Amino acid sequence: MTGAPLPLIDPVELTRDLIRRPSVTPADAGAMDTLQRVLTDLGFTCRRMAFEGPSGTGSDARIENLYARRGTASPNLCFAGHTDVVPTGNTEAWSSAPFEAEVRDGLLYGRGAVDMKGGIAAWVAAVSEVLAAAEPDGSLSFLITGDEEGPALHGTKRVVEALMAEGEIIDACVVGEPSSQHQLGDMIKIGRRGSLNTWITVHGKQGHVAYPARAANPAPVLVRLLAALDAWVIDEGYEAFQPSNLEITTIDIGNGATNVIPSEARARLNIRFNPAQSGDGLMAELNRLAGQAQADSGLQITLEHLCSGEAFLTPHGPFVTAVQDAVEAGTGIRPEASTTGGTSDARFLRAMCPVLELGLVGQTMHQIDERVPVAELQALTGVYRRVIESVLVRN
Amino acid sequence: MTGAPLPLIDPVELTRDLIRRPSVTPADAGAMDTLQRVLTDLGFTCRRMAFEGPSGTGSDARIENLYARRGTASPNLCFAGHTDVVPTGNTEAWSSAPFEAEVRDGLLYGRGAVDMKGGIAAWVAAVSEVLAAAEPDGSLSFLITGDEEGPALHGTKRVVEALMAEGEIIDACVVGEPSSQHQLGDMIKIGRRGSLNTWITVHGKQGHVAYPARAANPAPVLVRLLAALDAWVIDEGYEAFQPSNLEITTIDIGNGATNVIPSEARARLNIRFNPAQSGDGLMAELNRLAGQAQADSGLQITLEHLCSGEAFLTPHGPFVTAVQDAVEAGTGIRPEASTTGGTSDARFLRAMCPVLELGLVGQTMHQIDERVPVAELQALTGVYRRVIESVLVRN
Ligand SMILES: [Zn+2]
Ligand SMILES: [Zn+2]
Repeated sequence: MTGAPLPLIDPVELTRDLIRRPSVTPADAGAMDTLQRVLTDLGFTCRRMAFEGPSGTGSDARIENLYARRGTASPNLCFAGHTDVVPTGNTEAWSSAPFEAEVRDGLLYGRGAVDMKGGIAAWVAAVSEVLAAAEPDGSLSFLITGDEEGPALHGTKRVVEALMAEGEIIDACVVGEPSSQHQLGDMIKIGRRGSLNTWITVHGKQGHVAYPARAANPAPVLVRLLAALDAWVIDEGYEAFQPSNLEITTIDIGNGATNVIPSEARARLNIRFNPAQSGDGLMAELNRLAGQAQADSGLQITLEHLCSGEAFLTPHGPFVTAVQDAVEAGTGIRPEASTTGGTSDARFLRAMCPVLELGLVGQTMHQIDERVPVAELQALTGVYRRVIESVLVRN
Repeated sequence: MTGAPLPLIDPVELTRDLIRRPSVTPADAGAMDTLQRVLTDLGFTCRRMAFEGPSGTGSDARIENLYARRGTASPNLCFAGHTDVVPTGNTEAWSSAPFEAEVRDGLLYGRGAVDMKGGIAAWVAAVSEVLAAAEPDGSLSFLITGDEEGPALHGTKRVVEALMAEGEIIDACVVGEPSSQHQLGDMIKIGRRGSLNTWITVHGKQGHVAYPARAANPAPVLVRLLAALDAWVIDEGYEAFQPSNLEITTIDIGNGATNVIPSEARARLNIRFNPAQSGDGLMAELNRLAGQAQADSGLQITLEHLCSGEAFLTPHGPFVTAVQDAVEAGTGIRPEASTTGGTSDARFLRAMCPVLELGLVGQTMHQIDERVPVAELQALTGVYRRVIESVLVRN
């Protein structure tokens, strides 16, 4: 580190700079460069990691990612997030242009204000405040992707794989997703459920409804299997987690003829599961139940599974407590440590270290007129500074 | 009746004349005129009854029908059938052109040879033989439609309605459908099952799979209802009839999104039912079961029913016995009185009188190279003559 004074970053101005780069996934539009310049000024060593290739989703675009680290000492506290944003929707419906970053009546409007350019800017500002006071006892790092809102195949997932292959150590990670529900700091997320999709096909034999003995109707076999799956109590949940839940998301036969017994019947399930389950374990049980239905009916049943994320939970411990204390000191509210909601990149980061999510109030995310109160951005900066200090600065 | 000698009709030549009119539903192509000329020559009073109008099936074509009667005395023995035929399929695949009516190696080839221009010609020929021998003690009539293979909405159904409105009496009816299975005369049909289609819609509330409490998934409600319906033993059948049978013919949700709980789930059933049931009774029971599922689930369930034909059975009695005796005398085989198979126009005729079906071996019907042995046409003429004599000619 040089002796030259480091800049102090204004979270509002940095958020506005980032919003002005229209980085709708997979576009980067200069957002990553904007962030990298500021981090370089703060003494971070920045590595750009771009990935591309067939994603299987029709989006093969090159994705920008950034891993920036300041210092080599342990522990390494990482902030993770994304510079990409969801589309604006009808721009005419916005009260100011979505990439203008206008401030009106104490509110900063723009796509990404809440999810999550504001969160990134607040952590950068918090880092600049910490560094102005003292050199921390450890390393600070940023793991930022340009593909969290898209297929998320060339983003955090691949950066984590690459860092782990190199032996890079991260000791704790805060993801800056808008975790707060109604008031800044009322909730942090310490885990997420896993998600498994399963496609079921029952293969029967087509025929005329007047001669059912010459056909084999796959519909009742599928119906009985689905009824059994719907009645399956996967688990009861536990203190930190809701019960695992199975939903039948579609059933499709597509037979237009009223006098025909169809040849095939298909359905799809989605299971959101807590860490008491694993994707592999659920697949095995689904295969067993389908095998039983196949044996009972004599009809072939095939399953295809896709587990898009395992469940994880960061156990209550020093990291979670330190963050809760920091939030309470900054806001007066002790945050609920929750495991509700959809998936996030935390599902990939958990492979490296304890992860939790702490950020702005998410109410306007993904909506027309996404906006954040300027005061909330400043307050989050203060909360983030306390988190960094409690983990990295010895009193 | 005049004293002039009536013509003797050759069943093979009349079948060929009829086949040469390509009367693919709803086309008539002169088939009805051909038949009417021959019947007029035999002393029948012919009434053409044409119906048309929206059928709800996209086919609003004008349909030719014929009611022909010879004599006014009672009883009135009616022959019912249809001059329309199903499409040829790939004409290249036929060994001779489908409307050529070629005879090769004792077989007459052509669309309609078996189903059922051959049957019509055989009855006409039998009538001409009966009349050559003696004036019968009663009336002979023909009820012929040009729409049995199509929607069947402007055919026999409407002729029967019109005749009943006029007070016309038919005492017994033979339908000339190809009822024989392997050998001429091995089976007559004395009843048919009814058919009910029911469309089920379960109305839920769409939502995200991660937040099932905010949604109401209609899929498991539909699955449980269908499982209950599939397990429903409607009846055990009885001596003359198979058990009533329910088939789930389609289930459709059409939800492409793996993370979305769908808003609606639909299915369709078909019930083929014996005369122990009625369309109304089955609808009431389906409504009751759906109402129970609605009460259990709190989700709205709507049903739509369409009963396309009630079940009927012509009880064993003098008419059935007379026909069985006549078949046995003509073929050496005592026909099984069966109630199997799909629906036919007998479902409409039953409103007027006892109905049974007696005709050629049906194996090539609706197929490429539909064909009838010339000898079988002649043998059926003999059988039909015995049927007419046993009902109308006093010994
Ligand atoms: Zn986000
Ligand atoms: Zn027919």
